[in-house]
Order: sequence, then C-alpha cells, then structure tokens
Amino acid sequence: MRPPQQSALRPDHASLVVHGRDQPGIVAVVTSVLARHGANIVALDQHSDDPEGGAFFQRTVFHLPDYTALRPALEQDLAAALTGGFNLQWRFTDLSVPRRVAIFASRADHCLLDLIWRQRRGQLPATISMVVSNHPDLAQDVRGFGIPFFHVPTEDKAAAEAEHLRLLDGNVDLVVLARYMQILSSPFLEAVGVPVINIHHSFLPAFVGAEPYRKAKERGVKIIGATAHYVTENLDEGPIIEQDVVRVSHRDTAQDLARRGADVERQVLARAVLWHCQDRVVRHDRQTIVF
Amino acid sequence: MRPPQQSALRPDHASLVVHGRDQPGIVAVVTSVLARHGANIVALDQHSDDPEGGAFFQRTVFHLPDYTALRPALEQDLAAALTGGFNLQWRFTDLSVPRRVAIFASRADHCLLDLIWRQRRGQLPATISMVVSNHPDLAQDVRGFGIPFFHVPTEDKAAAEAEHLRLLDGNVDLVVLARYMQILSSPFLEAVGVPVINIHHSFLPAFVGAEPYRKAKERGVKIIGATAHYVTENLDEGPIIEQDVVRVSHRDTAQDLARRGADVERQVLARAVLWHCQDRVVRHDRQTIVF
Amino acid sequence: MRPPQQSALRPDHASLVVHGRDQPGIVAVVTSVLARHGANIVALDQHSDDPEGGAFFQRTVFHLPDYTALRPALEQDLAAALTGGFNLQWRFTDLSVPRRVAIFASRADHCLLDLIWRQRRGQLPATISMVVSNHPDLAQDVRGFGIPFFHVPTEDKAAAEAEHLRLLDGNVDLVVLARYMQILSSPFLEAVGVPVINIHHSFLPAFVGAEPYRKAKERGVKIIGATAHYVTENLDEGPIIEQDVVRVSHRDTAQDLARRGADVERQVLARAVLWHCQDRVVRHDRQTIVF
Amino acid sequence: MRPPQQSALRPDHASLVVHGRDQPGIVAVVTSVLARHGANIVALDQHSDDPEGGAFFQRTVFHLPDYTALRPALEQDLAAALTGGFNLQWRFTDLSVPRRVAIFASRADHCLLDLIWRQRRGQLPATISMVVSNHPDLAQDVRGFGIPFFHVPTEDKAAAEAEHLRLLDGNVDLVVLARYMQILSSPFLEAVGVPVINIHHSFLPAFVGAEPYRKAKERGVKIIGATAHYVTENLDEGPIIEQDVVRVSHRDTAQDLARRGADVERQVLARAVLWHCQDRVVRHDRQTIVF
Repeated sequence: MRPPQQSALRPDHASLVVHGRDQPGIVAVVTSVLARHGANIVALDQHSDDPEGGAFFQRTVFHLPDYTALRPALEQDLAAALTGGFNLQWRFTDLSVPRRVAIFASRADHCLLDLIWRQRRGQLPATISMVVSNHPDLAQDVRGFGIPFFHVPTEDKAAAEAEHLRLLDGNVDLVVLARYMQILSSPFLEAVGVPVINIHHSFLPAFVGAEPYRKAKERGVKIIGATAHYVTENLDEGPIIEQDVVRVSHRDTAQDLARRGADVERQVLARAVLWHCQDRVVRHDRQTIVF
Repeated sequence: MRPPQQSALRPDHASLVVHGRDQPGIVAVVTSVLARHGANIVALDQHSDDPEGGAFFQRTVFHLPDYTALRPALEQDLAAALTGGFNLQWRFTDLSVPRRVAIFASRADHCLLDLIWRQRRGQLPATISMVVSNHPDLAQDVRGFGIPFFHVPTEDKAAAEAEHLRLLDGNVDLVVLARYMQILSSPFLEAVGVPVINIHHSFLPAFVGAEPYRKAKERGVKIIGATAHYVTENLDEGPIIEQDVVRVSHRDTAQDLARRGADVERQVLARAVLWHCQDRVVRHDRQTIVF
Repeated sequence: MRPPQQSALRPDHASLVVHGRDQPGIVAVVTSVLARHGANIVALDQHSDDPEGGAFFQRTVFHLPDYTALRPALEQDLAAALTGGFNLQWRFTDLSVPRRVAIFASRADHCLLDLIWRQRRGQLPATISMVVSNHPDLAQDVRGFGIPFFHVPTEDKAAAEAEHLRLLDGNVDLVVLARYMQILSSPFLEAVGVPVINIHHSFLPAFVGAEPYRKAKERGVKIIGATAHYVTENLDEGPIIEQDVVRVSHRDTAQDLARRGADVERQVLARAVLWHCQDRVVRHDRQTIVF
Repeated sequence: MRPPQQSALRPDHASLVVHGRDQPGIVAVVTSVLARHGANIVALDQHSDDPEGGAFFQRTVFHLPDYTALRPALEQDLAAALTGGFNLQWRFTDLSVPRRVAIFASRADHCLLDLIWRQRRGQLPATISMVVSNHPDLAQDVRGFGIPFFHVPTEDKAAAEAEHLRLLDGNVDLVVLARYMQILSSPFLEAVGVPVINIHHSFLPAFVGAEPYRKAKERGVKIIGATAHYVTENLDEGPIIEQDVVRVSHRDTAQDLARRGADVERQVLARAVLWHCQDRVVRHDRQTIVF
C-alpha cells in the first residue's frame, strides 16, 4: 500500500479550547500562561455571543517542542490562573496524535469510502479503528484497506447495541454514522462516552419522513443539501457542524437527485469529521462554534 | 431620467408553451406548424416526466417578423393540428410586449428597489404599473421613479382587498409580493385573476413561525436561503420558481443574518420575476418547470 | 464484489445530436422523422447562437423499443430528409451501451478513484477498460477493482506514446486524463481518434506555470476552482465542459488549498465524464454546448 | 427620507489591528493591556503565516465605555508594552464613527446605487461624502439621495486628477471605484493618501483586454465572477479583498452574462467595502487577511 501523500498530523502542536461565561481578561490570562511556558501561538480564534456575561469560546493552537512532557505543568499553571473569578472549562488536544474513529455504515458506501480514502491519503488526523455495519455487504471493500469490519445485525436491537459498546469501549474517540440507517437509543448514546456525528440530507424547505428525494422532486425544489451534526436524543436535531447544497432542476430525475445528494453528503461529512478531529468544533447548547 | 441601458424586450419574438399528456409526435406537429408559417425557432426546451403518458412540457421561442399580424392564422393552424389524439393546452406570449406588474410591499425596501432598478435598467421585460403598500413609508422613493404608489391600510382586511382588486382590475398581468407582510385571502387569490409571486426566507432545516433568523442563529445553521414561489391558498407552499442560499457562521449576528438573507431574497425574487416575465415558467401540480 | 446499486444505462434509448447552420424547419424535419418511426422523444434541447444563419445544435433523446434493429432505416430516412437545403451533421448514440473509457493517471489518486467508484456504483454509463500510468504506484488499487493497469514509463516519450496507441487502438471510446502529469503530443492527439478529456485547477485570476497553489496563496485568492475540458493542441485551452469553485481564506494553508482543490477537481471531472458519456456535450469551435 | 432601519455603527466599540513579525507572547501582551484598561474583548482573530518568525496579524474588537476619552492612555500603554523585542505596527479604529467614503463612477450605476442603498439602510458604517464621475449621467440619481455629485471630465487627465485631489483632500477615508472606467495614475495613488478599492469582473480562466464577456462567451466558460481589490500601481493586480462567482451556460447571451456579472460585481464590492469599513482587512504584501 502506498504511503500517505501528506499528513494531517502536526508534531509538537496542540490546541487549547476554553469556554464558559465571558468576562474581561480571559484571553490575556490564557495567552500569558502559554507564553510563560514557551508556547508560540499559531492560531487563535475567539467568539463571544454577548460580552456582558454571555458565552465565551476560545481556541488556541500552539507550537511547543516536547509538548507531551510539558503538558502536566502547563495544565497545572492554567488551572491556577483560572481559579477565582472565572467560570470556565478547558481542554487540551494533542494535534500530533490521530483521533481513533469508528465508522458505522449500512449498505450505501459513498460516505464510508470517502472517509477511508481521505484517511489513507493523509488528509484526516485520524485512524479508522473499525467499521461496524448491520449488513455484511461492505466487508470485502473495508477489509481490503486493512480495516477491521464487524457485522452486527440489528434484529435484536438491545443485543446489537451491547455488542457495539463492547467493540467501542476504550477503543475510539469518535463514532461517525456514515449513512447508518438505524436509530441509536438514548441509553446507547449515554453509554458510548464519545461524540457521535451523523449526516443526513436537507432540503429547502424540509421534507419529513420517508422518500425525501421523491417528495423534493414533486415539490420541484431547486436546491438540495446535506447537514452533518452531533447526534443527540432528538434524531436529526443535534448541533449542526456543517452544511452544503447543490442546485438541481426539473431535468434531474429522482435518481439524479439521489446521486447529487450523495455527492454533497460525502463532502459535508468529510469536512465535519476533519474539523472535529482538528478540535475546531465547540458545542454549546443546540449549536456549534466552528473555528 | 436616463434611458434604459439595454432592453429585455425582443421585437418580433414570441414564445409558445405547450403542455399536457405526453405522446409521440407532439414536437414534430408543433414545430411543423411553426415552420409552415415561416417562424424560425431560436430556443426550444422540452421536458417529459414520463414518456409513457406522463406530463409533457415544451417551450419554443421563435422569431417571426410581423408576428402580431400573423398570430391569428398561426393560432388557428395550431388548433387544427392539435385536435384529435392530443390532450394539450398551449399559450402564445408576445415577447416584444412588456408584462404589466404590480408590486406589493410593506416597510422593507430591498426587494422593491431591486426590481424597480432592474426594470429601469431595461433588464426586465416589464412595466411596473403600481406599488401598493400597507404602510406609507416608501411613497416618496417609489414616486421618485415616476411609479404610482397606493397606500392601502389593512386594518379592515376585506375593505383593503376590495380596494386592491379595484386597483389591479384589468391593469396588471402579475402581482409580486416583495416582502409584503400580509396574508392574502383565498377569495382575493381567486378574484385577482393573475399569478402572484412571493419571496420568503428558507433555512436548512426549516424554522416555522416568528423570528426565524433568531431561531436559525440559536440552532447554529451554516446556510440560509430564500425561496420564490407562486402563491396558492396554502401559505408558503406554492410551486417553487427559484431558490438560492448563502453560507453563514457563528460570527454572523442575527442582524448580519437578516442582511445576508435580504441579499439572497432580492436576487432570488429578481430571477423569479424575470423568468416569469420571459414566460419560462410552467406550473404543473405543486411544482414548476423552469426552462 | 457487490452488484452496482443503480445503472446509468438506458435500455431502448438513444440520442440524436444534430448541428450545423441554422435555418427554419430543422426541428420539424428531425422530429417528424423520429415520430414516423415510432420514437417517443423524452428530452429535446435546442440551441442557436444566431437564428439568422448562425450555428444550430439539437440533442434529442428518444425511446424506441428494438432500437438496434430499427437504426439503419432511421438513419437512412433522416439522411434523405436532411438532403437539399440543410447543411447539417448528425450522430446517433445508443444509450443502452456503455462507453469504453481509458483513464490516464500519474501518482495522485483522487480523480481516478472517484471515477472508478462511480462506475462501480452504476452511476456512469461506461466501462473502465484500462488505467494507464507513468508510475507503478496505483497498480494494486486499480487491479483490486478488476481493472487492467498498464505501467508505461515516459522517459522515452515517443516510445511511450506508441505503446499508448497500441493499448488504446480499437479498445476505447474516450480517454480521460485524471491528473496525468504528462503533455500529450500533437501526433498522438491526431492518431488516438477518440476524444480526450483533461482536468486542471483554475483560479480567479489565473496563475500560470508551476506551483499554482503557492502562487494563489501568495496573492490571497478567495476562490479556487477546476476546469474540465477537451484536450486540443493548445494545452489547457480546449473547449470547456465543466467548471466549479470553492471558497478559501487566508486560514487555508497551501496544503489545505491543494486538498480543497482536489475535492473540486474530482467533482468537476466526474460531471464532465458523465455528461460526455451521456452524449450531452457538443463541441463547436473553441466552446461546448452542454445540454 | 426614512431613517435607517438599522445601524452598522457600534457605540463604545473599537478595533485594534496589530501586525508584524511573529514571536511568542504578542497576544498575551496586547490582551493584557486591554484588560488593564477595562476593555472587554468581543472578537479576537489571529493569524500567523509561520510561527517561526513569519508574519503575524491580530484583530481585536473590544467594548470600552468612554473609549474616546480613554484612548490616549490606552495607546501610550500599548506603545510601552510593545517596545523592546517586538517588531510590530498597530492601529486603533473607533467603530462608533462612520468612515467617510468617496465613490467614483462612470455610466454604469449598479455598483454605485447598491452602495448608496446599503448606506441609507444603515448597513454600512460609512457616510458617502461625494460621488465623482467623468460623465454627468448619474447626477440626478445621486443628488436625489442628498449626496454631492461632482462631474469631472477626464479629457485632460492631469487636470482631472488635480481636481480629484482637491475634492478628496481631508474629506474622505476611502475611495471606491464603482465601475469607474478610468485608470488612476501612480502620482495620484501616491498623493491621495487613503485606500482605493476597485471591482472588476473575473473569469476562469482569465480574459485579458477589451470585451471580456464576449471572449468568455466564445470560450464557453461555465463560471463568471468578480474580484474586489485594493488599487496599486499594477492595474487589477492589487491585494484581493473578496471574490465570488455565478454559474452560466451556453443559453446565456453576452447580454445575460453582463447582467449576471453585474449582479456579482455589486455583491462583491459591497462586501469588500463593508469589511474595509469594519476594519477587518489587513494588507500584507500582495495579499489581504480578512478577519
């Protein structure tokens, strides 16, 4: 197998995401701590939805040789600096280490293969640890890339989800539903312990229920799209990470719409997974901040 | 006032729109009639949603010197040719004659001024016969362009709609709702006798009810858009003529979203009105064919 | 290997493309011939760049059971009908038969894999007959799909092109350069006898020569794109089939630009190849008409 | 005249743009100075093109009641903090004060009127101080908005530019060329002392010289666009602020291309002027950073 043509991993780089209640001085405190430890900031984005006590978000990417060894002292120093008046949460992410990703798929392969290709090309800072499917169809394709494939039938949903949790436990940092046509239960979402990203088609206006492309065709929509979002208990209602659209016309058959929709879906999902793995996405209530 | 810089009118050109039940030979019959009368086809688009007895649509633009005089013979000949086995409707539209348009607006001026300015530049094959508003705010702007402005308060809705019908009767070929913030009654829509085009904002996914931009902001949508459609009894559910979108992010305030949404609205409405005036839009059930 | 999920082939369908000097009556003659033979028109597009003796283009897709057997009579009848005053060329294409495609690639796999995957999904009315490369890197990937892979080094360009011609001769209907980083000689282009489609990156404004993404980065471009075109003797100057773009910003590194550019390239090339295989593209001088 | 519907001005807000050679600690120093003076950061964007001594850019928007009175102390404090090892430039911009803008136009009104409408609607943090034109055509339109209009013929270019400088001197913060069809001389650009923004059409690929839309039509381009940039001595080669595109097809006449191009031009120019007036654009060599 060819070596990756490029690598999305960034040696000696890490990101620090801080969020909480806005108040003057946060940026100064955080950047001062980083400067004291010799970290050089290579990217800093900040967002506040209301400077008078609204929500505050900051993502800082910094370069710090020997980051792994220095991290404990850095964390300790930051914790000390942010005690007292500040009401903040923070997390460090080592950008030299790949995220471990499980992909769930059913029969459609467009989103799955797109992610695998990108990972193999070195475009995703991620390892694809396993593919899980309720159908056996894609086994050969996936294993051809050297990726473990687990066929978990879902006729007995409780048993299937128990098996899912056994497979995932301790092994992954992210679950991606790449056109996985099964609804995950609330207990599963609570137990899985890592974020879950889903992709679904979207229309202007929305079409609820089965056969959305047929309904869109009947209504004569001129734009179809896709939405990638974090999965929450309310199906298809979680915080949106990325969306995109494509123009269509009456000349497009329902089959054309499905094909063009699939093209948008895989692009949107790939961007959402990339940004999540780069730790660029901060969840806040029902929305996301994507830096 | 400067003369128009260009003209969207096309002397000696006309369009013929035919639609009905598909069957072999329609295109041959129609184009043969046109050829016999010396008409040269400059554009021909045809669409069939199912060649086995589905719906058939054809728009032909042709050049025919002295069209006005020749039209009765052409119509008679076409009627004769399409009797018998065919189950079709057709209409001729003289593209050298401007459509007469009434614009309804409330307080927001972005869609209204955009249409007026395009018409004045000669980009719309239309005359703006009047502007009707439930507020007096825009009177001076509109009259500055030499266009009649009628302020019709809507506190008494029945009286207002009666006044609307008096103003429109026999005077216009199209009504455009350019951010007119009033719902038209079913009796009005039946009585008005000409098509009515509306513009409204659209989101992925949809947000129903008041303050859609605030709700879109809360959900963190990444795409906002607008939809232009024919008005039917079901508000915002009529056949879609045109849609478009723009990307937004968490950096956009609700005010930014409204501004960017307004930019999309006026572009989408302008295209829909242009295409309608060029007779490029065929309505069919709940959809449109836009040639 | 899974069976294709859908098929782009259309049994009992064919297309007829007519082009030449415009004059009244062409559409009527052509559609009458089709109607006489029982063909039902399912799509008809027509374009004229000047009705007074300009260039005329028409593409008709029709449904005709037992087309293969009826084709000779249809062709004879059309030839008879178009003698005399008309100055036209025409071609029939059987849409139930896949185009035979050779793909040329070098080391980058994004365009190549995207085409293979679409073909396997049944989205392209095409067979991928072979992949030819000046590097051996992609052999395993390509052969894993059951497609012949030929490694033809290009150190001796004349010898390489002779080998290319031997491989292609009689075997393919189309050559696609999927990021093939070699210039084809004029004698090769004359000898190959089938259309050649290329993809290259495009910018607003253009950047000539090596390292375009670095130059685009230095200039701070906000849009990058890709252009698919037929190859002519003037490199990158042939008739454009399709183009598309994506927004970028100063936050994108040169590596990000290359990744996003690759995403656009594969989408644009896939559309161009699809439309060519569907016989929707008519070449005319330095441009194309894409119906 | 109606009052603005919204205001782009932000009372008690200012921006601070810092740029220079990157090195650790800049963000900490700057944000600490702001924090000491009680300023609350509402937006902070930072960009570095190479953390090892590359170029560094930071834009901070802060809320500080009574900013005007506190500004001298703030500036003094910042200057003191940034002496020594740092090699930086900075500027404060009071976001509660409108930029004073002169618009240069010729005969085409689309970009000019779009800017005037947006300003009147309260969407631009700007005052349009004057419109200057080499033709008298637009005088009545402009004066109807209460904006001074100066007709300066350019037959004698040196005299015209001297007159331009007299009109602009001390009166404006920005010059916008809204389809002004005259080339500005290098001495003028040196003397004018404020930034100059231009808009021009752009294509994939580029078409140099006169009649670009005709040439684009001949080449069959599928995408047309517009580029807004700062004017430098090399015409149309200055740092790009914003670009956008629209899809076109063979169905679009050269007139259609011009109309659609005009739609893109006015949107792109409006965004570029807005962002400049919001002090979001930092120039660096031949590119811009747009925060």
